[in-house]
Amino acid sequence: MKLATYQNATRDGQLMVVSRDLRHAVAVPQIAANLQAALDNWAQAEPQLQEVYASLNQGALASAVAFEQERCHSPLPRAYQWADGSAYLNHVELVRKARGAEVPDSFYHDPLMYQGGSDAFLPPHAPIPLRDAAWGLDFEGEVAVITGDVPLGADAAECGSHIRLLMLVNDVTLRNLIPNELAKGFGFFQSKPATAFSPVAVTPDELGAAWQDGKVHLPLLVDYNDAFYGKPNAGQEMQFNFPQLVAHVAKTRELVAGSIIGSGTISNRERSTGSCCLAEQRMIEIIDSGAAVTPFMKLGDKVRIEMKDAQGASIFGVIAQTVVAHD
Amino acid sequence: MKLATYQNATRDGQLMVVSRDLRHAVAVPQIAANLQAALDNWAQAEPQLQEVYASLNQGALASAVAFEQERCHSPLPRAYQWADGSAYLNHVELVRKARGAEVPDSFYHDPLMYQGGSDAFLPPHAPIPLRDAAWGLDFEGEVAVITGDVPLGADAAECGSHIRLLMLVNDVTLRNLIPNELAKGFGFFQSKPATAFSPVAVTPDELGAAWQDGKVHLPLLVDYNDAFYGKPNAGQEMQFNFPQLVAHVAKTRELVAGSIIGSGTISNRERSTGSCCLAEQRMIEIIDSGAAVTPFMKLGDKVRIEMKDAQGASIFGVIAQTVVAHD
Repeated sequence: MKLATYQNATRDGQLMVVSRDLRHAVAVPQIAANLQAALDNWAQAEPQLQEVYASLNQGALASAVAFEQERCHSPLPRAYQWADGSAYLNHVELVRKARGAEVPDSFYHDPLMYQGGSDAFLPPHAPIPLRDAAWGLDFEGEVAVITGDVPLGADAAECGSHIRLLMLVNDVTLRNLIPNELAKGFGFFQSKPATAFSPVAVTPDELGAAWQDGKVHLPLLVDYNDAFYGKPNAGQEMQFNFPQLVAHVAKTRELVAGSIIGSGTISNRERSTGSCCLAEQRMIEIIDSGAAVTPFMKLGDKVRIEMKDAQGASIFGVIAQTVVAHD
Repeated sequence: MKLATYQNATRDGQLMVVSRDLRHAVAVPQIAANLQAALDNWAQAEPQLQEVYASLNQGALASAVAFEQERCHSPLPRAYQWADGSAYLNHVELVRKARGAEVPDSFYHDPLMYQGGSDAFLPPHAPIPLRDAAWGLDFEGEVAVITGDVPLGADAAECGSHIRLLMLVNDVTLRNLIPNELAKGFGFFQSKPATAFSPVAVTPDELGAAWQDGKVHLPLLVDYNDAFYGKPNAGQEMQFNFPQLVAHVAKTRELVAGSIIGSGTISNRERSTGSCCLAEQRMIEIIDSGAAVTPFMKLGDKVRIEMKDAQGASIFGVIAQTVVAHD
């Protein structure tokens, strides 16, 4: 099943069921006004939404309209939780290597995760507002899950059963604010402005054989300023799968329905797969030649993030954002 | 105006208007089903709620009932944002002094703040579940504000105008999980389990002259296992006031209505005022005698947090929690 949220006059938008081929959509106010409401009441809402989805795919719904990604907000325009892991250790290894440091052994069995701001996400086709170019704006291409209610202390196997939906992410980051924040010891805060998610969220079964072992075994396709930038496989070299990442949260607190848990920037060791963020290219430049030459994003720069199935069809729609000045 | 949230069958509870003396309350479903809904539509809801509040205080509402703090959830049982500052630098200075380190100069002009989990708060009279006593459970007594919508880039003066409500906080912390998390560099995560807030949230005008310069100039009263533990004045030695703390968030992203921003553990240099967390007593013991002797909370231990006005009346009601085992 595929779901999206059209922007409307409300803070949470209008829940839409989207056809598998992303060509049609239908509003379902009789089931749930918005995605959070559906997640709050998933046991009842999910079978009704699946029924609409089946009819929509068969072309049997007179109320269906053409699906317009440009009208979408992030599937949850605001959420009660957004916690982001850093599960692709190649990314971490490059960061460390660029500054001549080792990756601690604990990083291979204890996930890195930070709590992100979740009160206001960007729509997937909205510009990225930038107040100061000196802050070092970067994109980060990721995958994320939306969970149902997860009890305190749930183990990874149980957490896996509470994964409701998957999305793509642009985890916008202000790189030049990070060193000062990490030195303060409280983690990322101002360095993590509003995040954007793909137009469409999908249930895990939509991925077919690509959803295995709690990972998405498909390349994430990233273009930067209309040119290829990266295509690392999200199923490879993911040190912690999504059930393990959710269990990391559940160790000391419950999660409520609608919690979003991210994978961290996707990264493969094979360099021909490119990168999902500018910082990684800069670290490779430092390792290879001693200095970073790739600049961070400037006004007008564009990033595009997508994932396609084995037949080449877009699964989640496209995140397509341009940097604009914010006074 | 004073507001509370009764627990009911919904995730967000039932909004209640509470009389100034905390003796009576009335449900207001005709205005807003819950506090988040009122905050989402504050310009319209606030005057209607104020009208009910005036009638309630005059004893003119036949539908009023006795107010029962034990029925309350946190005013926002779940929220879109909970970000906590560390504005009382005496607390930070003690932490550093106990380990022989200096406080960086930047700490006096750049607030410390971490993003907390906001998807599931504890009710103010609910037990604190503890899975492992070795994690070092501690309480932290604080004050917090709830904001309206705050635009990206708003300065402190503007941020002050968006403060809607104030509450007390028990920022539950797992002290022994902190060193490992800080070493990883991503900040607090598992070390910050579910937080509890006072039964009642109040508009700033309820504090009268005690609300000045964006600070609450009253002692926070903390009892531990039925004995005095602390009474530091929240208006003293607060390095950053609430408008400045909100502006710290707004520097790189907007805040949506219902965002909760905390002060950090309240702490005065004058030792006779006691402490609002066990860790601070332990640091004083380390500084004075080389070793901490105060243990962290055990099963059955109790914490009580309250604030009274100049006449000795409780402003926010009482946070009263007991530690219980969680299997």
